Amino acid sequence: METKNLAESITMSGGEGQYSYAKNSAFQKAGIEMTLEFINEEIASKLEVTKLLSDSKVFKIADLGCSVGPNTFLAVQSIIDAVKLRSKSEGLNPESIEFQVLFNDLVSNDFNALFKSLPERQYFAAAVPGTFYGRLFPEGSLHLVHASYTLQYLSEIPKEILDKNSPAWNGGRIHYSKKEVREAYSAQYAKEMDLFLSVRAKEIIPGGFLAALIPIPHVGDGPSPNDAFESCIIDMAKEGLLEEDKVDSFNLPVYSPSEEEFKAITERNGHFTIERTEKTYRTLIPDASKPSVKRFVNQIRSSSEGLLKEHFGVGNEVMDELFDRCAEKLIEFGTLSGSHKSFADFFVLLKRKVQA
Amino acid sequence: METKNLAESITMSGGEGQYSYAKNSAFQKAGIEMTLEFINEEIASKLEVTKLLSDSKVFKIADLGCSVGPNTFLAVQSIIDAVKLRSKSEGLNPESIEFQVLFNDLVSNDFNALFKSLPERQYFAAAVPGTFYGRLFPEGSLHLVHASYTLQYLSEIPKEILDKNSPAWNGGRIHYSKKEVREAYSAQYAKEMDLFLSVRAKEIIPGGFLAALIPIPHVGDGPSPNDAFESCIIDMAKEGLLEEDKVDSFNLPVYSPSEEEFKAITERNGHFTIERTEKTYRTLIPDASKPSVKRFVNQIRSSSEGLLKEHFGVGNEVMDELFDRCAEKLIEFGTLSGSHKSFADFFVLLKRKVQA
Repeated sequence: METKNLAESITMSGGEGQYSYAKNSAFQKAGIEMTLEFINEEIASKLEVTKLLSDSKVFKIADLGCSVGPNTFLAVQSIIDAVKLRSKSEGLNPESIEFQVLFNDLVSNDFNALFKSLPERQYFAAAVPGTFYGRLFPEGSLHLVHASYTLQYLSEIPKEILDKNSPAWNGGRIHYSKKEVREAYSAQYAKEMDLFLSVRAKEIIPGGFLAALIPIPHVGDGPSPNDAFESCIIDMAKEGLLEEDKVDSFNLPVYSPSEEEFKAITERNGHFTIERTEKTYRTLIPDASKPSVKRFVNQIRSSSEGLLKEHFGVGNEVMDELFDRCAEKLIEFGTLSGSHKSFADFFVLLKRKVQA
Repeated sequence: METKNLAESITMSGGEGQYSYAKNSAFQKAGIEMTLEFINEEIASKLEVTKLLSDSKVFKIADLGCSVGPNTFLAVQSIIDAVKLRSKSEGLNPESIEFQVLFNDLVSNDFNALFKSLPERQYFAAAVPGTFYGRLFPEGSLHLVHASYTLQYLSEIPKEILDKNSPAWNGGRIHYSKKEVREAYSAQYAKEMDLFLSVRAKEIIPGGFLAALIPIPHVGDGPSPNDAFESCIIDMAKEGLLEEDKVDSFNLPVYSPSEEEFKAITERNGHFTIERTEKTYRTLIPDASKPSVKRFVNQIRSSSEGLLKEHFGVGNEVMDELFDRCAEKLIEFGTLSGSHKSFADFFVLLKRKVQA
């Protein structure tokens, strides 16, 4: 699988259809709302607006992996409100500050849909297309960067797991379960996140914030949604509905670091101080009834079907079958029933060092 | 006709289809190439890069009415090259300057297509959706604004020409021919262009440039392409292929000011000095053969069919008929044959005053 194809396929489904991200992002919304409180507390207590705006009257916010809304609009408005409040407490006139919001996602994102759903706003909106594992913005041009549910995406699958002769060969599986595969994912993540932090360090002004929310999809016992998903893909390959060769070369480009891992990467990178970390537990679905599980599965679908269609060369019918089976399997595994605390997010707020 | 609908419909056709702007913009390309020489001469002789970049290392260019490419990419690259050359002659290191290009068009523009066709580049690209008859960018944030073949669009049709009781009532016609209608268009244009210059004056840093290229579609004798177009619409309404009522309420939202008019508006506005004006004459089509005329008509179609479909509530079949007839009529009128100098563009380069 080539990097370019991979990066271009990891995009939430656009438009307003049944499986669009716009209609299937309630899961993310709950997590974002929770962490906006943390961000706003940090802004209220630590963001030095006067100092950040010493060269310009424009406060610039970037939302990375913005998708098509509505969550991105919710997040940036909440951040702007918090910055205004903070600026007031510093004795500034909040009305004298202009805000510019730069919405970023991959080129394949549906920016037309994003623009059409832009709300009435008191900020200047712009979109910046491209991968955040490279430079996107001019040097020292950002004051606050927000990245929710997007830093779990890798830009590239670790090469070893695609190599039949490597101990990390992941044939027949689509995600990390055995040790060697997990280590390969972990090393890939560390490399990419170090690059991410280095390019953001160029773009974020000293004293500026970088807030990220990274899902940890499954921390409980028993099979995870990814396990259920993998199991359905393997079944469908056996039945000839998906090509077996393509299962060998398919791997989810997603890695969830532990808190310790993320901290170690950040410290090694050296450009940011860690101001706050939080682990939050959430109810994914209200109950394990079929309609609730279906809604959960549609959320997975909105973020993965582009990648799946591209890799397996299949259409909507096969996707319908896959996600129907996935819902059945989740009910069978009982993954979503029982404890409501078996899913977590990792929140981190970093501050760009003045000298680094 | 409501302003909102109008503004949202004046968009070049997106995508890559037969009538897309991407495939039907050679006409504009020739004009843009010609005027880029004027822009680059002015940059070479008058743009004070050191002064403009005294507060920032980022040179910011906006292209208004960018559509989907490729002309916009051609224009901004040429401008960047000229700014680099000029900066070198000022003793700066061109490599130390970062460039950011802000591509603007209406929300209805196909920004997805624009992003997908972005070339390899040495600038940071961003898109800004919205009408340029309002604020789009933070205060003092732009160094050079380019607007080719877009300042002829009005955001609103003058109210008088839609009023049956006004001497300027334009029933049965779609553009200005009689004196009262022309005066109403002219007054509307003066009002909108004054607003345009005032909002840009906020956004462009003192000493920054605003370059515009405005088509003057027909300066020769005899019927213009708009006349041919109008005549076909009237015929089709008589035959019941278009609703006659809707012809009464349809008016092209386009006005071409004379050089004197544009200068007077700019001087009254007071925020800019006029550094250069040029009138250029161009060959529209190589000959008056049917294939050439068809190509010309497809160019008109790519920029008007969105508006027409919306207003008349018709689909592709009626559009095919209309533009087929339009080609026949142009051949019949002989508008495109004979003199190759019967079409002109008006180029103007303005400089933001330091105090105004």
